Formats: sequence, structure tokens, C-alpha cells
Amino acid sequence: MRFSLERTDGQARAGTLHTAHGDIPTPAFAPVGTQATVKAVTTDQLHQLGARLILANTYHLYLRPGAERVQRLGGLHAFMGWTGPILTDSGGYQVFSLSATRKIDADGVAFRSHLDGSSHRLTPESAIAIQHSLGADIIMAFDECSPPYDRRTNEQAMSRTHAWAQRCLNAHRSGEQALFGIVQGGVFADLRQESAQFIASLPFAGIAIGGLSVGETKAEMHAMLEVVTAELPPARPRYLMGVGSPEDLVEAVERGIDLFDCVLPTRMARNHAALTPLGRLNLRNAAFADDPRPIDESCDCTTCRQHSRAYLRHLMVAQEMLAATLVSIHNLRTLIRLSEELRQAILEGRLAAYAAAFRASFRKHRSPEI
Amino acid sequence: MRFSLERTDGQARAGTLHTAHGDIPTPAFAPVGTQATVKAVTTDQLHQLGARLILANTYHLYLRPGAERVQRLGGLHAFMGWTGPILTDSGGYQVFSLSATRKIDADGVAFRSHLDGSSHRLTPESAIAIQHSLGADIIMAFDECSPPYDRRTNEQAMSRTHAWAQRCLNAHRSGEQALFGIVQGGVFADLRQESAQFIASLPFAGIAIGGLSVGETKAEMHAMLEVVTAELPPARPRYLMGVGSPEDLVEAVERGIDLFDCVLPTRMARNHAALTPLGRLNLRNAAFADDPRPIDESCDCTTCRQHSRAYLRHLMVAQEMLAATLVSIHNLRTLIRLSEELRQAILEGRLAAYAAAFRASFRKHRSPEI
Repeated sequence: MRFSLERTDGQARAGTLHTAHGDIPTPAFAPVGTQATVKAVTTDQLHQLGARLILANTYHLYLRPGAERVQRLGGLHAFMGWTGPILTDSGGYQVFSLSATRKIDADGVAFRSHLDGSSHRLTPESAIAIQHSLGADIIMAFDECSPPYDRRTNEQAMSRTHAWAQRCLNAHRSGEQALFGIVQGGVFADLRQESAQFIASLPFAGIAIGGLSVGETKAEMHAMLEVVTAELPPARPRYLMGVGSPEDLVEAVERGIDLFDCVLPTRMARNHAALTPLGRLNLRNAAFADDPRPIDESCDCTTCRQHSRAYLRHLMVAQEMLAATLVSIHNLRTLIRLSEELRQAILEGRLAAYAAAFRASFRKHRSPEI
Repeated sequence: MRFSLERTDGQARAGTLHTAHGDIPTPAFAPVGTQATVKAVTTDQLHQLGARLILANTYHLYLRPGAERVQRLGGLHAFMGWTGPILTDSGGYQVFSLSATRKIDADGVAFRSHLDGSSHRLTPESAIAIQHSLGADIIMAFDECSPPYDRRTNEQAMSRTHAWAQRCLNAHRSGEQALFGIVQGGVFADLRQESAQFIASLPFAGIAIGGLSVGETKAEMHAMLEVVTAELPPARPRYLMGVGSPEDLVEAVERGIDLFDCVLPTRMARNHAALTPLGRLNLRNAAFADDPRPIDESCDCTTCRQHSRAYLRHLMVAQEMLAATLVSIHNLRTLIRLSEELRQAILEGRLAAYAAAFRASFRKHRSPEI
């Protein structure tokens, strides 16, 4: 993997991540395919809506169908029929947020599966080995993500994360997979600074920021981004994990982030909510029963080109699966189109104006429905 | 609508139905889009898998979202974003099979909605008016479908169906919509013959055969098809309603049927079953967990070109919606590819050989799983 930085505009950056499965122009938003599928969306539809990178979850795939099985079937690209770049997380976040019970020590984490209660253990070394089996283009160091506000907990988690980062690098074999390190530190500026300096000092191919968008305020997230990105070397890509919404993307790109992933667009779609640059629509609302307009007049997705709000509402009221597919396509396209527009604005040196217009429009139209 | 008969081979026929929304080469299989969506499949995917005609259900659309609403939104084509030909049934079959209660008299049927218990009434005149509002290319006369074996019930249902057929023709305004009549008569050859003669004597644009595949044996269905098609004028298209499986398609095409529709391929897909020319696979079976082959090596659908049985099984075990989409695409393509191959065999005068090979292969490989 190689990252080329093409242009900066303030702190914002436009670049390209070159991988064995294709180039990823940045800033880029990656749809999440937790169980080796972006829920309700085919790989053809993902290509069509402009996805250049997708994420899959190591925790889920390790438990089911199993990493060795995926490897025997040709690796994650072949398994899910996606020819573009893939990123896998390390499983750490899900062990802490999903597993039935967990016990952490200096070596790793013992946990019980949320599926069947079976006992498992993840360590930096096994998390890397599993990700080697899955075969994603970008893989992540095993880290500990803690709630944002307790200083003692965050100090401990950061310190484990740093020790594990070094062990992940030692366990990683050279090859086509690029390993990213993860910065932690909660909402504490000094911890974030220390973590960013330490992770940046190691030979990771890219640097991720974890533990944000987990309960802290927007102002705190923005402050932490500024502290961290100030410490990061420009030549390596920066990935803000688990973010975000359209408004979060704009703010984070302005602060120098290159990569994003989030379940928000697909999860909202399954809950009847459509994202637009002007806010969110609850499409199940009776007000849309006779509305012949697309979700977003300005959108170029297949859903907006072919279907009305009235039709989408009908599908939702009738509990038709197609609703989730069509709105997921729209919501993903909205995030990806936004990342394309942000990139273009950076390349043309007009990001500040673009972001100001986005914020003004968003404040004016923001729907109170969701 | 115009029907051109291009070639016959025994009783079998190859032709083309010309409609305002495009040509339908026959024999043709129509996917069912009950609530204005073929479940889990987009209109782009329907075009891609070769669908040339789709069916929608008047009963469902009348109750929800309402025929006037569909009309206000530009008619069914615009409402569901399908640019090809559409056929609507008359609502009769669903009133008898789905409604909470029903009371039939010479004038029509009073029933309560299966959705909310509300009271409604369908008559030949209102069924035609509703179908005018929906705006399908092919619409159906309002008929009474009864269980196959009671002679008295079938005599009465046939006689009502005939009286209603005339009233439907009187209520139908000329225009781009083609009205088809429906032959009834259960498993009684003399009733089927009488019904076919009567319906054929009226100026319907096409003739449908109702009340088959509703509990009678295959041998009875085949016998009734032979009785009916012997009475039908060659110049008009023949539509076997609610059929079928791959094996039913072959048998019915050999007996002179041009059009089919059935929920089987999409319903089976949602129940984890894949259709193949060699029988059916229950993809949730553990035997497929490591199977790298596509559902059907000979299939040209996007699912078979991109995904393994192992992946599809994983999606099913993980309860991912994408499984229903991918297997629906495959199952629909299997029926449509079969209808394309049957057409080609007729055009080349080799249907008997094609059907014999199909039957031999099917008998040999038929999976006992479903």
C-alpha cells in the first residue's frame, strides 16, 4: 500500500491510497459490511454508488463463518465477491461492546461469544493472525477502547494499546496487507497527544483514531482531532474509526482526516430514515404518502433517479425488504458523494467556502424528526 | 396490445406480445411483485436478469396504498419505477384466499381486509375500474376461483365467472390496456371445455387459465391444460396463472401455454431454497459451508457469477437480508432462462428433445431435500 498526498487546503488533505485491489481517492467514506455483507446491498450496487473501500468486522467473521474457512474459500475478497479494497478492524471494539462477558489482562482479552456463549481469547498476535487469514488490504492493530470520561481507565487502556501496538507490528508479516496503528486517550488532550506521538513513532502504514464518537460531545471530538492530527506525519493516511454522519465528515475532513467508516447510513435506512444534505427524513411519516419527489432532488443515486418518497413510504408501511435496500443505496451514496465533493473542494482550494455553505444549509433545514 | 405467433412445434408456441411498454417474447415467465415490488429485488436487477413482464396484485394495491393514490402518482409503472410491461390480476383470487371473511353473490364479493378488518366490495365493474387506475398493460377479468374437486361448487363458480367476464368486457374502456378472460372449471373436463369455449367466444385480448396448481395432481393439471388449449384460438396469447416450477413450465409449454407467473422462485429464495435445472438445494444445509461452487455452474446470473454456496449459506446462517436478494435473483433467472431456452427450442423445432433431456436430468438429480 502506498499513500500519495495530492493537495492540502488548511488542515484538510486530498490524496490517494494505492492498494493491490485498486485506488482509494481520499477523503473517503467506507460502507460497513459487518458479516461480509453491507446489509441489504449487493457488491454491484456498492460499485455503482461509488464505494472504493469497504470495512468488515474481524470479531464477527472470526466467530462466524470462521477466519480459516474464509481463507480456504480464497480470502475475504473472493468470499464476499468484492473486487475492491477491504479494511478489517482488529475485533477489539466488538469484544468490548458486544461480547457476553470479557476479562482483560496484559496479554489480551478472554470473552464469550454473543452468539452462543462459547469461550474465546483474542491477543494482539491472534488478532493479526486472523486478519492475515481474512486477507483485507488494510488491517488494524488490536487496541483497547474505553468509555471517554474516566481518566484512570483511559490511561490504562492507552498504555495497553501502546504495548499491543508494538506486539501487532512484531506479529505482522510483510506482504500486501498494510497495518494501521490506533490512537486512544479518551477526551484527555495530554493522553491523546502522548498516544498520537507514540503511535506515529512506530512504522505503521497508517494511523487510526479510535475511541471517538462513543459518547463525548461534538466539541470534545473536534478538540481531540485537532490535538491528534497536529502530531501526525503528513505522509501517512489518517482514519477516524466509526464516524460518521454528514456533519461529522465535514468537520473531521477540515481537521485533516482521510478515511471514515460508519454503520449509520445503512442502520438508519433499515429504520426508515433517509440522509440528505439538508437533514434527515423519516420516510414512514404520513406526510410522504403522496409525495412524488425523490428523497433528494440533488442526488444522483439509482433510488433517487427511479423512486418517489411515496413509493419508499409504501414499501416501509408494507414491510417490504426492498425499502432497506433502496434507502441504504441512497444513504451510502449521500456519504460517498459528500466525500467526493469534499475532495474536489480541497483540490480546488475552496474547502472553507464549501464547509461554510454546508453548515449554513444544514442549520437552516435540519429536520427535527430524528 | 398485439400478439404475433412466430412458430409452433407440436402444441407449443413461440410468439411475441407487443405492448406499449415493450415486447414480451413468449413463452415468458413473469416475476410476481405483489405489493408493487418483486420482494427483495430492484427494478434494475429485474431488467438485468431478463424479466420482460412482471405481475402485481390488485387486491393488495387496492388495500394499500390504494389505486387512486397509485394513479395520482402516475400509475403503477411510474409508482414502482418499472419501465417494462406489467400485468395485474383482478383481485379475485386473493379475495378468496387471503381476506378475513367474504360473502359472494351474483353481483360480486363483500370481504374484510386481511390487514385491518375493514369492509370492502369487489365487483367485475370495480375490479376493472381499479385496474384502469393502476394502469397495467395487461389486466384480468374478475373471476371466482374455487377448490378443484367439488363439482357443484365448480359449476357455480364457472357460471359466475362467465357472467362476470361479460360484465368486465362491458366495463372495460378501450385504450392501451389489454383485457384477458379467465377459464375455470376445476378438474372437470366437460366444465373446462365449456368454459374455454365460452371465454374464447368473447372478444378478450388473451385467455388465462385459472384454478390450476391449487391442490390437484400434476396429471389432472396436464389433462385440464390439454382440454382447454384444444378449444383456444391460436391467434390469442394463453396465460397459465400462478404456475410454476421449472418442471411445470416445461409441461405447460409443451401443451401450448405462452405466459406464466408464480411467487415460487422468490418465496423459495426467502426460505433458503435455490432452484436449479437439476432440482432444489437447501442452501442452509451444513454440507454447503465449505462449498466454493456457485448454486448452478451453468447459470449466467450475477449471483452465480459472483458468489459461492458457502457465502450464501453464511448469509443465511447470519440472517443477512442479502441472502434473499441474491437467491431471488438466481431463482428468477433460472425460470426466465428456462423460458428463453424453451422458446429457442420451439423456434428451432426441437422442443421434444429439449423437454426429454430436461425430464431425464431432473429425474436423475432431483434433490430430496425440499
